[in-house]
Amino acid sequence: LDFKILGTGSATPQLERNPSAFVVGLDNFSLLIDCGEGTQFQFLKYKIKSSRLKYILISHLHGDHYFGLIGLISSFNLNKRSDSLTIFGPPGLDELITLQLKLSNTQLNFKINFFATNPASPELIYDNDVFSIHTFPLKHRIPCVGIKITQKESKRKIITEKIPSDFPISFFKLLKDGFDVKDELTGKIYKNSEYTTLGQPPKSIAYCSDTIFDTSIVEHIFQVNLLYHEATFSEDNTLRATQTFHSTAIQAATIASKAKVDQLIIGHYSSRYKTISHFLEEAKTVFSATVLAEEGDSYLI
Amino acid sequence: LDFKILGTGSATPQLERNPSAFVVGLDNFSLLIDCGEGTQFQFLKYKIKSSRLKYILISHLHGDHYFGLIGLISSFNLNKRSDSLTIFGPPGLDELITLQLKLSNTQLNFKINFFATNPASPELIYDNDVFSIHTFPLKHRIPCVGIKITQKESKRKIITEKIPSDFPISFFKLLKDGFDVKDELTGKIYKNSEYTTLGQPPKSIAYCSDTIFDTSIVEHIFQVNLLYHEATFSEDNTLRATQTFHSTAIQAATIASKAKVDQLIIGHYSSRYKTISHFLEEAKTVFSATVLAEEGDSYLI
Repeated sequence: LDFKILGTGSATPQLERNPSAFVVGLDNFSLLIDCGEGTQFQFLKYKIKSSRLKYILISHLHGDHYFGLIGLISSFNLNKRSDSLTIFGPPGLDELITLQLKLSNTQLNFKINFFATNPASPELIYDNDVFSIHTFPLKHRIPCVGIKITQKESKRKIITEKIPSDFPISFFKLLKDGFDVKDELTGKIYKNSEYTTLGQPPKSIAYCSDTIFDTSIVEHIFQVNLLYHEATFSEDNTLRATQTFHSTAIQAATIASKAKVDQLIIGHYSSRYKTISHFLEEAKTVFSATVLAEEGDSYLI
Repeated sequence: LDFKILGTGSATPQLERNPSAFVVGLDNFSLLIDCGEGTQFQFLKYKIKSSRLKYILISHLHGDHYFGLIGLISSFNLNKRSDSLTIFGPPGLDELITLQLKLSNTQLNFKINFFATNPASPELIYDNDVFSIHTFPLKHRIPCVGIKITQKESKRKIITEKIPSDFPISFFKLLKDGFDVKDELTGKIYKNSEYTTLGQPPKSIAYCSDTIFDTSIVEHIFQVNLLYHEATFSEDNTLRATQTFHSTAIQAATIASKAKVDQLIIGHYSSRYKTISHFLEEAKTVFSATVLAEEGDSYLI
């Protein structure tokens, strides 16, 4: 499970920072979280494999979080994508995409599956054998959701050096699934506890942008391995953070501390700050395992 | 009258080139022609004064010509713009902007005046004392217009060294407007031909992107001072140019030659070309006064 940062800016455009976009990589596929203007150029710059991208999640419909979506979709189409794309986003986003495609007389070569998120209450919006996606309400100026992506515990690992050469292939799956296996021909019983070890433990990432300081989200992100929480402002603008429904570095760190996460990444810096090192200093006074989001950085869990 | 290039790429995104956007500067205001994704970042990079921008013209609704518009509008609003903005574009663009503003719950601080262009026939779409805008049909895959901007002949210039010190101020305007003036007190007649010279001659710029090779546009751009004409392909892809309703460098040059323009700028290069010097070589075989569009370049007429 890895988390790659493509954008660290906020609403006012900056030359040095792109608006929000983050790629979460799982085994052999990836998810894009938010898609600010220019994200498709960040895909080129950081050589993100579009073919692996199967899911896009849009947290809310402020432009710095989604104005790049239609460009990305259009470029996928120009590049002859055929694999379907699943988009989770606020109600109305599907209507907008449909209108934009209609106005340019574009027939997509691939299918878009759109699912509207629910900004009013926590939901499990996606679930399969490999991972799940939860959303939960964030308090912002317009409907907005936080996102938790959980990579599930992997199956048990077989201790291959203990397996005899005549071990039936069909038994492997049973062992991985946690069963003891009896060889009916020889009568030998292969105890699961003896021939396997624990698989990878579950891993989780949570994404909270944009939001006012709000401890009610703690339960939804409790003990995640990695938390991205916006820190639009530093301590000098705590009042402004509240007024604009954003957070400060210290507020982000307070949420991370209460949620007992392993690591906190802060980003979404306001354009008013020419340097951001004091964001880190401030956050670390509350939660030491904090890092600053920088474009191109990846975090592997 | 000047023409500044912000984007030289075409539909498929390129790291080295931005999609179409061009700023036409007149006396104390400017017009933006097309607004591909990322144009607002080009405004920052090239220090384009947003406050001077009064008009935006969108040629057609392929994404590389307008996906940056909503971002630009949103950023104007964040930056507290209060001056109205006049947008000319294909029917449907206003509906799209309205929907995007509604979804982000944005109330603009400034007024947008939208005028739908007519892709079916030539039209004078704007006219005042200073300049006029004509549009004319381009043959592309979706409705598309070419644009001609004409800066009008300026008023006659007064030869100040000939004017006596007791010359009534109210007479200046009459002389500038081309009249002879009689001073009723002294009986002296100031002959216009003696006290003024010609003002600046009219100047014009035409913009043709995107279009198949089409000589029917020649009459609409005849003898303009500066013609921007797309050259998506070089001679190796003449067939593909026709199939995709685009032009080659030689075709753009042929149009420039037939229209007897002073200068031709070609751009909108396909991402397949890593170098473009051969575009210039090819175009110059037909029309020598050709230059290659490069981002950041300005042409003063």
